Amino acid sequence: MSDLKSALSACAENVEIVLDRLLPKTDNPEARVVDAMRYASLDGGKRIRPFLVTQSAALFGVSESCAYRAACALEMIHCYSLVHDDLPAMDDDDLRRGRPTVHKAFDEATAILAGDGLLTKAFEVLADPLTHENAKIRADLCLALAKASGDHGMVGGQMLDLVAEQADLNLDIPEITRLQRMKTGALIAVSCDFGGILGNASKQARQSLNHYAHDVGLAFQIADDLLDVEGDAEEVGKATGKDEAAGKATFVSLLGVERAREQAHLLADQAASHLEMFGEKGEHLKELANFIVTRSK
Amino acid sequence: MSDLKSALSACAENVEIVLDRLLPKTDNPEARVVDAMRYASLDGGKRIRPFLVTQSAALFGVSESCAYRAACALEMIHCYSLVHDDLPAMDDDDLRRGRPTVHKAFDEATAILAGDGLLTKAFEVLADPLTHENAKIRADLCLALAKASGDHGMVGGQMLDLVAEQADLNLDIPEITRLQRMKTGALIAVSCDFGGILGNASKQARQSLNHYAHDVGLAFQIADDLLDVEGDAEEVGKATGKDEAAGKATFVSLLGVERAREQAHLLADQAASHLEMFGEKGEHLKELANFIVTRSK
Repeated sequence: MSDLKSALSACAENVEIVLDRLLPKTDNPEARVVDAMRYASLDGGKRIRPFLVTQSAALFGVSESCAYRAACALEMIHCYSLVHDDLPAMDDDDLRRGRPTVHKAFDEATAILAGDGLLTKAFEVLADPLTHENAKIRADLCLALAKASGDHGMVGGQMLDLVAEQADLNLDIPEITRLQRMKTGALIAVSCDFGGILGNASKQARQSLNHYAHDVGLAFQIADDLLDVEGDAEEVGKATGKDEAAGKATFVSLLGVERAREQAHLLADQAASHLEMFGEKGEHLKELANFIVTRSK
Repeated sequence: MSDLKSALSACAENVEIVLDRLLPKTDNPEARVVDAMRYASLDGGKRIRPFLVTQSAALFGVSESCAYRAACALEMIHCYSLVHDDLPAMDDDDLRRGRPTVHKAFDEATAILAGDGLLTKAFEVLADPLTHENAKIRADLCLALAKASGDHGMVGGQMLDLVAEQADLNLDIPEITRLQRMKTGALIAVSCDFGGILGNASKQARQSLNHYAHDVGLAFQIADDLLDVEGDAEEVGKATGKDEAAGKATFVSLLGVERAREQAHLLADQAASHLEMFGEKGEHLKELANFIVTRSK
């Protein structure tokens, strides 16, 4: 196994352990919502965002226990957004990571509440002194995450996506890029910024990470669009061919498969180039950029 | 107009102004979600929770500008919970504060996103240095709000309510009290605690406010149950008679109207008694306890 792959799976294992601790089982009568929060967040995904948090935190010598708590809070936001996006009133998906979506495994009301619960828990974890002894860092983490995931970020991006679909808008490349930056890019960017905040990094270091994150985010989206066109549903773990069926403009529909793939690779190279200042310590993040555009799920 | 009523309406006016500033209109293509967030939070309600925040903050000489920002963040949480609770998959309500609910005025997807947006914005506002220059206070506000509104508080309470309804459980008084403490009491309690956190209050002062808040919260719920039985839908601004139609156990169904009313008044008196240490400054909060159990909407 390559160095990156073993680092990714080590990260995923740690995320599993920390999430399990942050979301303990209960036998109270309201346990159903906790069970759904656990179902939505445990045992799933590549944990790309937690990897970005912990790797960028490691650049600045942040302790692993701080980094993983922050990483898991951020992952809770990602997981809640999947739960709500999958709802019948939104994207209406039955399958996620090869398993029934939360509203299928539980019910719609529980899925809405589990999403709300995860969203709220993310801020509880970040604001807790256990995440960092410095209160300014805790408040800055909360602020950065809220900005990235609210109406100017992820929530706004999901709205834009729905509006464009319902109105049958033909978005062009700049518009799709803006949508992507809001819907998925902002959370990827804040993942890297978490490392800088936790490590009290210099402005220059945070800026370099920010440039890296923006390129990686865009490359990630293009790779996702390519998987939707070319991937196998079983391997990808969710329905494919959805964008084309919905007549949705994507990077791939606008650029064609070949140019989209080229663009993704260019972005991955460009992303890596922003990390020169970190030397060897940035190696995993550089490799990740490349991994993201070559993955098959 | 009584002193309390004019204080309540002055508070409601200020909340309107501050919320309007915190949720500025936009003409971006994703404006729909911001419009829905504004629809859900502006021009509505008695603003009891913001009143509790600002009055408890005033006990400790907190500046109004800090107190109103924190109060509006907390009100956003209350408003998001109403938007999600009203959804077809939850309580399926068409009417709220005399107007169509958010999913009726917009659509379900927008209502889900607007709720998520308000929830997220609440933490953005609290973590912002504009709310308080002391980072520890900002982080403590975030932590207290998250604990009160997550799976151990409001979200857990709503789950418990749904579970009890679906399983046709006959809750007894201790169980209904626990449900109420989670579903509505926790947010009322944290409203008062916000004042203590903002004002760096003594442990004793915070404890007194906490006792007050718990009694007020329970009194508020009993009054709400009474309105559901006795109130007029037009005046109350939402459907009434729902609990009985659903065969739901409430304080009123278990105690009967007369004993429930007595209990509410006892709680209001008891609540007021906890504020003795604050002297004249606690007058509005004392009056509020009484107002809550005598209101007609």
